[in-house]
Amino acid sequence: MSFKEELALHTAQAEDILKKYLPAEEGLQKTVLEAMNYSALAGGKRLRPILMQETFRLFGGEGEIIEPFMAAIEMIHTSSLVHDDLPAMDGDEYRRGKKTTWVQYGEDMAILAGDGLMIFAFEAASEAFAILKRDGLGGDMAERIGECIRILANRTGIYGMIGGQTVDVEMTGKSLDENQLYYIYAEKTGALLQASMTIGAVLAGASEEDVKTVGEAAKKIGLAFQIQDDILDLTSTTEELGKPVGSDEKNEKTTYVTLHGLTASAAKVKEISEEAISALQELPGENPFLMELVRSLITRRK
Amino acid sequence: MSFKEELALHTAQAEDILKKYLPAEEGLQKTVLEAMNYSALAGGKRLRPILMQETFRLFGGEGEIIEPFMAAIEMIHTSSLVHDDLPAMDGDEYRRGKKTTWVQYGEDMAILAGDGLMIFAFEAASEAFAILKRDGLGGDMAERIGECIRILANRTGIYGMIGGQTVDVEMTGKSLDENQLYYIYAEKTGALLQASMTIGAVLAGASEEDVKTVGEAAKKIGLAFQIQDDILDLTSTTEELGKPVGSDEKNEKTTYVTLHGLTASAAKVKEISEEAISALQELPGENPFLMELVRSLITRRK
Repeated sequence: MSFKEELALHTAQAEDILKKYLPAEEGLQKTVLEAMNYSALAGGKRLRPILMQETFRLFGGEGEIIEPFMAAIEMIHTSSLVHDDLPAMDGDEYRRGKKTTWVQYGEDMAILAGDGLMIFAFEAASEAFAILKRDGLGGDMAERIGECIRILANRTGIYGMIGGQTVDVEMTGKSLDENQLYYIYAEKTGALLQASMTIGAVLAGASEEDVKTVGEAAKKIGLAFQIQDDILDLTSTTEELGKPVGSDEKNEKTTYVTLHGLTASAAKVKEISEEAISALQELPGENPFLMELVRSLITRRK
Repeated sequence: MSFKEELALHTAQAEDILKKYLPAEEGLQKTVLEAMNYSALAGGKRLRPILMQETFRLFGGEGEIIEPFMAAIEMIHTSSLVHDDLPAMDGDEYRRGKKTTWVQYGEDMAILAGDGLMIFAFEAASEAFAILKRDGLGGDMAERIGECIRILANRTGIYGMIGGQTVDVEMTGKSLDENQLYYIYAEKTGALLQASMTIGAVLAGASEEDVKTVGEAAKKIGLAFQIQDDILDLTSTTEELGKPVGSDEKNEKTTYVTLHGLTASAAKVKEISEEAISALQELPGENPFLMELVRSLITRRK
C-alpha cells in the first residue's frame, strides 16, 4: 500500500471513530446537534486524531482507550473553525467549498454549535473513564486519563490555541514582531498538534522524559508546517496549491518569509524538521507510518 | 449570625476560590484574560459553587479537592452569560449595571473570552488530580474526579445547559408548549444547579442512590426557582424586584404562569419545593445552612 493509500485508510478510520462519538440528531435541541455534525463532518484529513493514535502506537499503546480523545481533539479543532468563521471574527462564508456553519444555521446556532462541540469534547474524553472501568484497566490509567484531560484543556485554551487566536485577532492588519509571530504559529496552529501527540504518548504510558521530547518535536513540526505554508503561498502556483497564492503579500501580512526571506525560511524548515524527526526516531518504539506522516506534513508542495 | 450574613460570608469565600483559579493578566494574549476576569468578577451571589460546597459538606466532604470544581462551575456559568449577551444572541448591553463583555471588549474578544472560560473550567477541574496527588488521596478518588468531569460536561453541554439555550433561542418570540417550557426550565437554568449539587455529592463519596436523590431534588429546586421567577414578574413591584416587572406579559412570553395561572403556579412551587426539601432531609448527614439556602431560593420575594 502506498503512503497515500495508507493515509486515506487512516483518515476513514479516524472519521468512523469521530462519528461514533458525535451526537444522534434527536431531541428538542436537535438543531444544535445538526449544526455540530454538519461542521464536524465537512471533510478534512483528520490529521490530529491520526497523529494522536500513531504516537499512542509508537509507545506500544493498544485498545479503545485512545478513541475518546481522538474524537475530542477533532471536536475541539472543529469548534475553533466554527467560531473563527463567525462574522465578528473572520466572516468566512465558505470552507472546503461548503457553506460555513453560521451561513447554514445562523450566527446564534453557530455560536452554540461551537460551544457545544467544545464542551462535548470533554464529555467524550471522560468516556475514557468508562472504558477503563469496563475493561478493568488498572495501574495508573485513571491518572493518565486525568493528565490527558488536563493537556487537552491546557493546549486548547488560553495558554494554547485560544491564546494564539487572541493575538491573531488583535493583530489583524497590523505588522507583527518576531515574538508575536512565533506565538501565533506555536499556539494557534501548533498547540493542537502538541496536544494530539502528547496525549497519545501519555495514554500509552510513556515516561515523563519521552512525553517532553514528543511535545518539543510536535512544536517544531507545527512551526515547520506553518513556515512551509508561508513559503508555498509565495512560490507555488494557484493550480498546484488548489487555493489562491500570494494572498499574504496582497494582505501585507507578516509571515516568517516577510521577516527573513525565502532562503532563510527554507533553511529553517529543513533545520527544525530534521531536529523533530531525529528526536522522534531516538525514542523507544518504531512507527514508520508516523515518521512518513510527519515528513509529508513538512515537505509538502501543497 | 443571621442567614443573610452567613450567605454573604459564603459568597465572599466562593469568590476568593474563584479568584485563586482565574488567570493572571499577563502574556501576549492578555486581552482575552482581562475579558475573562472582567466577566467572572462582575458580581453575583456565587450560588452554584456554594450549593456545590454545601452538598459536599452534607456528605462529610472535607478539604480542598472541591475547590477546582467550585471555580469551574462558576466559569462555565459566566461563559454562558458572555455568549448569551452577544448581539447575535440576546444583544444585551448591560448586566448588573456594568457593560457586558462584548460592549467592553468587542464581539471577537467576547466570543474568545466565553470560549476561554469554558475550556479553562476543565483545566481548573483537572487540578483536582494534582490535589489528589499532592495530598496522597487514595481509594476511588481518581474515579470520583473523572465522574465529576463527566457530570460537568454533560450538564453544561448539549444534553444540559446548551441544549436548553438552543430551544430558548429557537423559540424566542414563538409560543411554547408545556414540553418545551419544561425542557428550557430544566436545562437552561436547572442543569447547572444539578451539576453543582451532584458534583458535591459524588466528590464526597455519596452512594449512587444518594447522588440520584440529590440530582432529582436539584431538578425540582431549579424548576421551583424558575416558576417563582414567573410569579414574581407578575405579582411583585419594580421596587421590590429591583428590575422591571410585567416584562413576560409585555413580550407575550410563554411561562408556567401563562399556561397554568397564578394559583396553580404557586401550588406547584409549594409542592415541588416540599418534595425537594424533604428528599434532602432524608439523606444521611445534616447541613442546616444548605436547607435554609434552598428554602431562600424557592420562597424568595425578589
